[in-house]
Amino acid sequence: MKERLIDQKLAVLRVEPSQLDQLLHPRVDPTTKMQKIAKGLPASPGAAVGKVVFTATEAEAAAAKGDRVILVRTETSPEDIGGMHAAQGILTARGGMTSHAAVVARGMGKPCVAGSTDITVYEEHGYFFAKDHKVQRGDAITLDGSTGDVMLGEVKLIQPELSGDFATLMSWADKHRKIGVRTNADTPKDAQVTRKFGAGGIGLCRTEHMFFEGDRIDAVREMILAEDVEGRKRALAKLLPIQKADFKSILETMGELPVTIRTLDPPLHEFLPKTDAEIQDLAKKVNIPGERLKAKVDALHEFNPMLGYRGCRLGIEYPEITEMQAQAIFEAACELRKQGKNPYPEVMIPLVSTLKELQMQQEIVERVAQDTMKKAGVKVRYMLGTMIEVPRACVVADEIAKIAQFFSFGTNDLTQTALALSRDDAGKFLPLYVERGIYPEDPFVSIDQPGVGYLMRMAVAKGRATRKNLEIGICGEHGGDPRSVVFCHEIGLDYVSCSPYRVPIAKLAAAHAVLKPAVKIKEMGEK
Amino acid sequence: MKERLIDQKLAVLRVEPSQLDQLLHPRVDPTTKMQKIAKGLPASPGAAVGKVVFTATEAEAAAAKGDRVILVRTETSPEDIGGMHAAQGILTARGGMTSHAAVVARGMGKPCVAGSTDITVYEEHGYFFAKDHKVQRGDAITLDGSTGDVMLGEVKLIQPELSGDFATLMSWADKHRKIGVRTNADTPKDAQVTRKFGAGGIGLCRTEHMFFEGDRIDAVREMILAEDVEGRKRALAKLLPIQKADFKSILETMGELPVTIRTLDPPLHEFLPKTDAEIQDLAKKVNIPGERLKAKVDALHEFNPMLGYRGCRLGIEYPEITEMQAQAIFEAACELRKQGKNPYPEVMIPLVSTLKELQMQQEIVERVAQDTMKKAGVKVRYMLGTMIEVPRACVVADEIAKIAQFFSFGTNDLTQTALALSRDDAGKFLPLYVERGIYPEDPFVSIDQPGVGYLMRMAVAKGRATRKNLEIGICGEHGGDPRSVVFCHEIGLDYVSCSPYRVPIAKLAAAHAVLKPAVKIKEMGEK
Repeated sequence: MKERLIDQKLAVLRVEPSQLDQLLHPRVDPTTKMQKIAKGLPASPGAAVGKVVFTATEAEAAAAKGDRVILVRTETSPEDIGGMHAAQGILTARGGMTSHAAVVARGMGKPCVAGSTDITVYEEHGYFFAKDHKVQRGDAITLDGSTGDVMLGEVKLIQPELSGDFATLMSWADKHRKIGVRTNADTPKDAQVTRKFGAGGIGLCRTEHMFFEGDRIDAVREMILAEDVEGRKRALAKLLPIQKADFKSILETMGELPVTIRTLDPPLHEFLPKTDAEIQDLAKKVNIPGERLKAKVDALHEFNPMLGYRGCRLGIEYPEITEMQAQAIFEAACELRKQGKNPYPEVMIPLVSTLKELQMQQEIVERVAQDTMKKAGVKVRYMLGTMIEVPRACVVADEIAKIAQFFSFGTNDLTQTALALSRDDAGKFLPLYVERGIYPEDPFVSIDQPGVGYLMRMAVAKGRATRKNLEIGICGEHGGDPRSVVFCHEIGLDYVSCSPYRVPIAKLAAAHAVLKPAVKIKEMGEK
Repeated sequence: MKERLIDQKLAVLRVEPSQLDQLLHPRVDPTTKMQKIAKGLPASPGAAVGKVVFTATEAEAAAAKGDRVILVRTETSPEDIGGMHAAQGILTARGGMTSHAAVVARGMGKPCVAGSTDITVYEEHGYFFAKDHKVQRGDAITLDGSTGDVMLGEVKLIQPELSGDFATLMSWADKHRKIGVRTNADTPKDAQVTRKFGAGGIGLCRTEHMFFEGDRIDAVREMILAEDVEGRKRALAKLLPIQKADFKSILETMGELPVTIRTLDPPLHEFLPKTDAEIQDLAKKVNIPGERLKAKVDALHEFNPMLGYRGCRLGIEYPEITEMQAQAIFEAACELRKQGKNPYPEVMIPLVSTLKELQMQQEIVERVAQDTMKKAGVKVRYMLGTMIEVPRACVVADEIAKIAQFFSFGTNDLTQTALALSRDDAGKFLPLYVERGIYPEDPFVSIDQPGVGYLMRMAVAKGRATRKNLEIGICGEHGGDPRSVVFCHEIGLDYVSCSPYRVPIAKLAAAHAVLKPAVKIKEMGEK
């Protein structure tokens, strides 16, 4: 382009979105000598160097002192989120490409080697074995999340370069693309990364991810274990200022850009301990009999949690939860408005599949919004909408759009339900299915267009038949997959939302969606 | 009608299908004195009298001697099937209207009182407490599955009368209805009941239910635990004659009527023990190290088995399973054909959601069918088709119909996936959802017409666009629900399939579906 051999459009088309992945993460300097000690799955790209730690608490403490650490665990669970944030990279002995460690690491843009069967972790003794190598707590290692390699010592890394030519290319992509690009961001820190990558807003803020940080989980557990509404309200009152402070910081960081906040979604048992030892520990901490806690944990057990007691089903049985979350959102927004700012929250209700569910949750949100604004004496722009993540929601999208001001496709769960395919269990047969061409590719990576895509088209058509200006986006992991971004452009979505680290990829794919057909037509005309 | 005051059509319309439920089961004589000792859920209608037993083995042994027994358990599991068949009725302390005991009992047409919190079962001591009453093994009790009452001693029962007026009404219903009525029947004994109730065939024969009887489970477990194809084939060779004998008996009983046989469907872990003690027991029995068995059980564990490794996914990874089942079906059919009979098997592949899956299973079934018929020197009528139970299958029904000669809607699973609603877990919030009118009624009882029904209509239209004469039925429990039967008639299904004991209800509902619109039109004309 600088040599005037091709034009800007062709220059944009000459770079494949997937190529950017390499540019966006640090990588191992290939000229350095390395001692590879183990191999695992390349679960989240990029390279990382740090000292070995074995618990989330250690990781957070070390990071607070400015140390760079690698979190090594047999497998991770939601309680490790803080430690994963604090670490440079994550190494696990168990779990596949869709394990907790892998999914969360990709979301954070953090290098991860998962399911390395070469290693055995002895957390309680403070070391792990990588084949014959014994690696002690505090020893330095290097991970390459793009290849799955684990190396001894500090290997030299090459840092990514986001300015210069890269910035120029991004500005061209922005000029040509039509579809918006937002990010999934759960914390104030995520929101800052979002701005850095030039996203047009937050498409998914999962409020429950805030629940795991520090001692917040205690209040969450107190709420779950409460015997009655009063007990729940007492616990929720402790969460209110915490959620409000988070929302305020996120909304402030995002300025006038939209922030889609999802109300509580996961099944409650995800917040409770699992093993008997953990249950006894917690029972002591919250001062209730171990047996009662065990009974509660058992009562919340589910055979199929993906199809269970979660999403808006929680907010309908416990309206006080939705109420607290709405209060946190609108109090935060009103305070910013009073300071002359112009925040834009979009409240999103999850797992809706009937109009009535949305209506019941809307009544709560509306009431709290109006009350809070009246009390504060200001008006705040906001919308209320829903995730579209259940096949039935696609079928009755015309009904749901009577109330919903926006839709956001939750394509992770829509894929699980439409294909009867559990993401956590599919590892047993999905590789075979892809290898034999039953699925042209992993439907959790790229949207299954004839199946899930058909339902999405239906929901778009039905939704806009009821509400012409219905805002529609996507917040599943597909929002960062180039092929899926092109598909979302084609079916008329307003935006895609993805992990911050995939924003450049999504932008470039979005520009390709516009330019490819035009260039094809031109080529045909020139023949 | 006999008094010539109304005509036959109006007479049929004057009886509500749901009223028949009372006529089809024995009921408690209301004039008898009764001592009620506990109450539970009315999980399966009808009354039953018998002596208390606590295990399936006891029940089978007692029944073999001609004793009438009531099986009392904390809860039932698939291994209890034999005992449930042998018992007059079932009483459980735990579980809801959709628990294993309740669903299986309704399928068997056997009275069941489930989830009676009034009782505590001490199986190991041979008694149970019903509030203050201690009931010993061998004591007589009476259950009323229509009310949920449990009574001490033998209460006098009134037997149902299926001849006389009832038979006349049925003959009228048969004359007017257009849609066929088949039954779900898993065993030779079920097939006999099917004939008794005058069904037009078997719409669902679940081959795995045969796997639990007697010591068959040992061969099934040997197959699951096999280390390689050879080991699996050795175990399958043991199952072949058993399955073949069952199929032969079922096909023979059904004469020329169609018998839809589903290939292996449930996740393999359903066939393995769960507790550590059971695992150690089995390990000794099959002579493998307890640890290895435990590791296998752990490896097969699933987070969401409903969306997991089951259905055709098993037959695709282990083609030798489908092969053995096809061989059993066609060897049985050929032997009957040689005797001058004319059996009609319909081989049904479960959990299909792509054309390719069906194609891969069809290749196996076709090859085995052709080989077997060639070897036997006879031709057998048969069809190959699929369950439609995954939302994606409805979306791509036009593709699937390229190979499928019939569809059968598996509306239990289609409801679970389309609504993201686990039947086993929904007890936590489903009552609230029905009470608040979020669902007009329990979607597992009557088809959710705007949601699941929409997907069914779509599948019918798409399927018949590809294959005009595509046979379409339904084999979910909805096939015995009057409102759902009318809906199936309206969307153009060829038949419904239900529990044998619901055949008269389905037939009457089917007649209503034809007659109601006609009578309405006549009434309007008379105005």
